[in-house]
Amino acid sequence: MSNPSFQSPHEAESVFYEAFERGDLEILMSVWHTDDSVECIHPAGPRIQGYRDIHASWEEVINQSGSVTVQTQALKQIEGADVAVRHVMEIFHWQSDNDEHELKVLATNVYKRFNTGWRLVLHHASPFQEDEAEMDILRPALH
Amino acid sequence: MSNPSFQSPHEAESVFYEAFERGDLEILMSVWHTDDSVECIHPAGPRIQGYRDIHASWEEVINQSGSVTVQTQALKQIEGADVAVRHVMEIFHWQSDNDEHELKVLATNVYKRFNTGWRLVLHHASPFQEDEAEMDILRPALH
Repeated sequence: MSNPSFQSPHEAESVFYEAFERGDLEILMSVWHTDDSVECIHPAGPRIQGYRDIHASWEEVINQSGSVTVQTQALKQIEGADVAVRHVMEIFHWQSDNDEHELKVLATNVYKRFNTGWRLVLHHASPFQEDEAEMDILRPALH
Repeated sequence: MSNPSFQSPHEAESVFYEAFERGDLEILMSVWHTDDSVECIHPAGPRIQGYRDIHASWEEVINQSGSVTVQTQALKQIEGADVAVRHVMEIFHWQSDNDEHELKVLATNVYKRFNTGWRLVLHHASPFQEDEAEMDILRPALH
């Protein structure tokens, strides 16, 4: 397939999430830098390292998420000369047993500028906590 | 208190985690950039924005974590000219009911270079999943 060149982190991110929303694995993976240093953490998932394993993980997500819709919302940008960080809310909707379900995920995406343009090098996603019940995971330790 | 100047993301991060391990709130907060744009997500916690609220959240963490020890392990660095990203494993240990507990947390820390040196502008931490049981949080949606 063709090797796209992204002129900005914003352009790379738009292509990434449009592909995610459409379930287009090849376009989604074309945004990643293709070496062993890249890293991906799916919500409540392990640390996946390297392009090949990240490709396999997204293949699993996309193949299994046929009935899930994904919407995204850009929250924050930190722009540098050659490294940029973007915060995105990923909102998943699906139906089961006649109920509507929603899951919000917060992703920190890191882009790096290469000779060939900007590429995604890190995706760290975790379930989004809406309310102020912070530090729940540490509560057993803290009390 | 004095306003330190960090010459590298590595130096800022060392000071941050040494202060975290010692429970020194003021030194820990001296690593953060002091404006409303900074952001902090504690493990399974909400999105906390702005220096003042982040200070309050770390005060709560440190005040309540007296019997918790914290060890850290640097995992990955993405260095840019003016933005840098570092991945750190935070390992918490505590005792309760004569049992030893351990919790691993993965943090993505983003540093930005200002005239006054490097500062922390984003801390995104989430519980670390060791095994390959990825995407557990999405499993109800994906199956």
